[in-house]
Amino acid sequence: MSTSASISACAQSVRETCPLVHCITNYVTVEGCANAVLAVGGSPIMSDEPADVEDITSICDALVLNIGTLNARSIEGMKVAGARAASLGHAIVLDPVGAGASALRTKTACELLDTLPVTLVRGNMSEVKAIAGAAAATQGVDVNPEDAVTDMDAARRAAAFARDFAAKAGCVVAITGPIDIVADANRAFAVSNGTPLQGRITGSGCMLSAISGAYVARFAEEALEAALAAVVHMGVAGQRAEARMTEADGTGTFRTYLMDALSLLSGADLVRFARIEEL
Amino acid sequence: MSTSASISACAQSVRETCPLVHCITNYVTVEGCANAVLAVGGSPIMSDEPADVEDITSICDALVLNIGTLNARSIEGMKVAGARAASLGHAIVLDPVGAGASALRTKTACELLDTLPVTLVRGNMSEVKAIAGAAAATQGVDVNPEDAVTDMDAARRAAAFARDFAAKAGCVVAITGPIDIVADANRAFAVSNGTPLQGRITGSGCMLSAISGAYVARFAEEALEAALAAVVHMGVAGQRAEARMTEADGTGTFRTYLMDALSLLSGADLVRFARIEEL
Amino acid sequence: MSTSASISACAQSVRETCPLVHCITNYVTVEGCANAVLAVGGSPIMSDEPADVEDITSICDALVLNIGTLNARSIEGMKVAGARAASLGHAIVLDPVGAGASALRTKTACELLDTLPVTLVRGNMSEVKAIAGAAAATQGVDVNPEDAVTDMDAARRAAAFARDFAAKAGCVVAITGPIDIVADANRAFAVSNGTPLQGRITGSGCMLSAISGAYVARFAEEALEAALAAVVHMGVAGQRAEARMTEADGTGTFRTYLMDALSLLSGADLVRFARIEEL
Repeated sequence: MSTSASISACAQSVRETCPLVHCITNYVTVEGCANAVLAVGGSPIMSDEPADVEDITSICDALVLNIGTLNARSIEGMKVAGARAASLGHAIVLDPVGAGASALRTKTACELLDTLPVTLVRGNMSEVKAIAGAAAATQGVDVNPEDAVTDMDAARRAAAFARDFAAKAGCVVAITGPIDIVADANRAFAVSNGTPLQGRITGSGCMLSAISGAYVARFAEEALEAALAAVVHMGVAGQRAEARMTEADGTGTFRTYLMDALSLLSGADLVRFARIEEL
Repeated sequence: MSTSASISACAQSVRETCPLVHCITNYVTVEGCANAVLAVGGSPIMSDEPADVEDITSICDALVLNIGTLNARSIEGMKVAGARAASLGHAIVLDPVGAGASALRTKTACELLDTLPVTLVRGNMSEVKAIAGAAAATQGVDVNPEDAVTDMDAARRAAAFARDFAAKAGCVVAITGPIDIVADANRAFAVSNGTPLQGRITGSGCMLSAISGAYVARFAEEALEAALAAVVHMGVAGQRAEARMTEADGTGTFRTYLMDALSLLSGADLVRFARIEEL
Repeated sequence: MSTSASISACAQSVRETCPLVHCITNYVTVEGCANAVLAVGGSPIMSDEPADVEDITSICDALVLNIGTLNARSIEGMKVAGARAASLGHAIVLDPVGAGASALRTKTACELLDTLPVTLVRGNMSEVKAIAGAAAATQGVDVNPEDAVTDMDAARRAAAFARDFAAKAGCVVAITGPIDIVADANRAFAVSNGTPLQGRITGSGCMLSAISGAYVARFAEEALEAALAAVVHMGVAGQRAEARMTEADGTGTFRTYLMDALSLLSGADLVRFARIEEL
C-alpha cells in the first residue's frame, strides 16, 4: 500500500471503528487530549489510580502514557496499566514530556521504555535525545532551539538519529517540530505540515500523542504508517486553523479552530494536503 | 405549579441567588464544569483534599460528586464531604462516570449512593444500570449502544427502569442520551432536546451534573423539577450552539457556543424550547 | 522611568526573553494558566510532585504558587519548590485562592508567605484580608461583596490596607476586583481596566497570577511596575475581548477572545489603554 493510501485508510478506520484510548496524562492539557481523540473519531478514557487502571486498560484498544505532571501515584498507575496493556497486546504510546528537564522525568520515561513493549514514542527532539542518552539540554517542556529541525539538512541528520533510536528502542518514533520526523528502524519520513502557532498554545504535542493512540490502536503492525497519519492529521489541522484566522484572532481562536479542523478532516483531506518526503 | 412554570422558576432562582456548588470531580472536564456552573448563574468551588473538603462544603449550598479519574485521595474526600453535606442537609448530586467500566468505579458509586442521602443521580443508561446491579456492558465512559434511548418505545421502558431505580435508591435520577429520562419514584419525563454533537465533545455529561448541583441547591424538595430544568437547560443550549455553526465549524466551536448558550439562556427561553413529555 | 515606560518595557521584555515559569497550580484552571503564560510571551511548565519540583524550578525564572485544589502532595511540592526558588533568588508569586474559605487554605497561604521570600501576592480582597489576619468572611473563591472595591473612595481605603499589608509581608500585592489595587509598602496604584465578564469565567484571577510570574521573572527588583503591567495586560485584554462580542456571544466566546487579546497586545497597546491612578 502506498503511503497516501495507508494514511487515508488509517484515518478512515479510526472514524469507523472508534478505538477506545486509555490515557494516563498530565492535568494541564488533558481536556484537549480527550477532545482531540473524540475529534479524530476515537473515544478517550482517563484513569491514573493504580487500583483502577487495569480494568480500564482491559476494555480499551490502546494506552497513552504522558509523563507531564507525573507523580508517585500516576507513575505507579502507568506501570500497572502498561503491564496489563502489554499482556493484552495493546498498542502503547509514550510521550516523554519534559524528559531531560528533571531526573524523575528522564528516569520514568526510560523505565517505561525499557520495561514495556512501546509501539510509538512521540516527543520533541530534546526529549527524545534525553531518553536516548544523548547529551541534551532541554528548555522546560519546549525544544532547545539547537535541537529544532528547521531545514532538510537538519531533517536528514534527525532521520539518521531517529532510525537509530527506533532500532535500539524497538519502536516507531515521531519527533515533532518545525519539520516532523517519523521513523522506524528502516525508514524515515519528514512531514512539513503544521504552523508555528501550534507552539504558541499548550498541548499540541500532548494532543498529537493522544490521537496517535487512536491511530495505532488498530494498526500496531503498521505503526509507522499510523503514526505518520496522526502527525499529518495534526499538521494539516494546524494549517487549516491558521488559514481561517483574521487579524483580531489570536491563540484562543487558533486553539478552537485547531479542534474544529481535527474533527472535520477526512482521510482524503489528509492525503490531499500531506507534505511528506521519505529521507 | 406546572412543569413549565417550575422550570422557569428554577432557572431564574439560580441566576438570582447564585448557589455555591462544591464539586469533587475529575481533572479532565473540571474547567468546563466550573465554567458551566458560572454560566447558569451559580458559583463553583473545587476541592478534593480530605483535610479541606469539610470547610469548603460547609460554606456551599450543594455538593457534586463525579467519580471520573477517581483516586484514593478523592474517594476519601468524597466520603468526608458527603458526610458533612448530609449533616447540613445539602443537596448531593452523584455522577457515576464509568461505573461498570471498572470494579473500583462501580464499587465507589454504589458506596456513595448507599451511605449518602443522594438527591440526584445523573449518568448515562449503562452507568445507571451498572449501579442498579443490572447486567450492563459499558463501553468506557460512553453508553453501550444497546442501552441508548433513541425512540419513545425505548423511552417508556427506560422510564419504568428509572422510576424503579429512583424508588429503590430514594432519589431522583436523570439518565441522559439521545432522549433523556428524568424520574423519581412516581413520575418520569422524557426530554427530547439536545444534539448528537454533545457526544462529540468531552464533558457534556459532567457539565450537566455540575449545573444540576446549582439547580437542586435551592430545590432539594422539588429535585425532580430542578433536575428536569437542568437537563432542559443543557439540551436547549446544545441545540442553540448547533444552530449557530457554519460548515467550517467543528467540535471546538461547538464547545464554545455551548458555553455561550448556557450563559445566555433565560428561564423563559427554556420554557419556550423545552421538549418534555410525561411518560 | 515613568509608569507608562516601565509597563511597555516589561511587556516587551517578556515577549523578547520568554521567561520560563514554573507553576504549581490548581487543576481547574491550569490549562488556561499555561495558555495565558504562552500568550503573553512566556513559557510555562507545571509540576507539583515533591520529587520533581526542585529540578524543574532550577531551570525556570519564576515560581507561581496557587493554592486552589491544594492537597497534601502539592503543599509539600510548593514548600520544596519554594525553598529552591528562594535559594536561587527567583521571583515567587503567591495566589491564595480561597484563603479564608477553609482553615487549610488560610494556613497554607500564611505558611508560604511567612517562610518564603514572596515577590508578589495576587488575590481578591477577601483572600488578602484573610491572610492579613483581618476579619474576613469569604464567599467560596469569590470576593465577599462587602470587600469589593467599586469606587475611588473604596480604592483609597484599599490602598492604605494594601500598603500596610505589603510593608508587613515584605512584598508587592495586587488585589484585583472591579478596581484593582497594586501596591508595595510605599506606593499604591488603582487600575480601572477590565470588565465584569472576567468574573463570569473561571480562572481570570489564576491566569493573572500566572502571567504575573512571567512579568516579575526579569523584574524582581521592580516588582511593583511588573505587577502593574501584568494587571493592565489582563484588564485591557478583558476590555478588548468584550468589545468584539456580539449578541449571540456569551462566556465561551469571551474566554476565547480574552486569550486572543492576551496574545496580541503589545507594550504600546497596554500604555495606550491603561487606566492607572496613583493613590
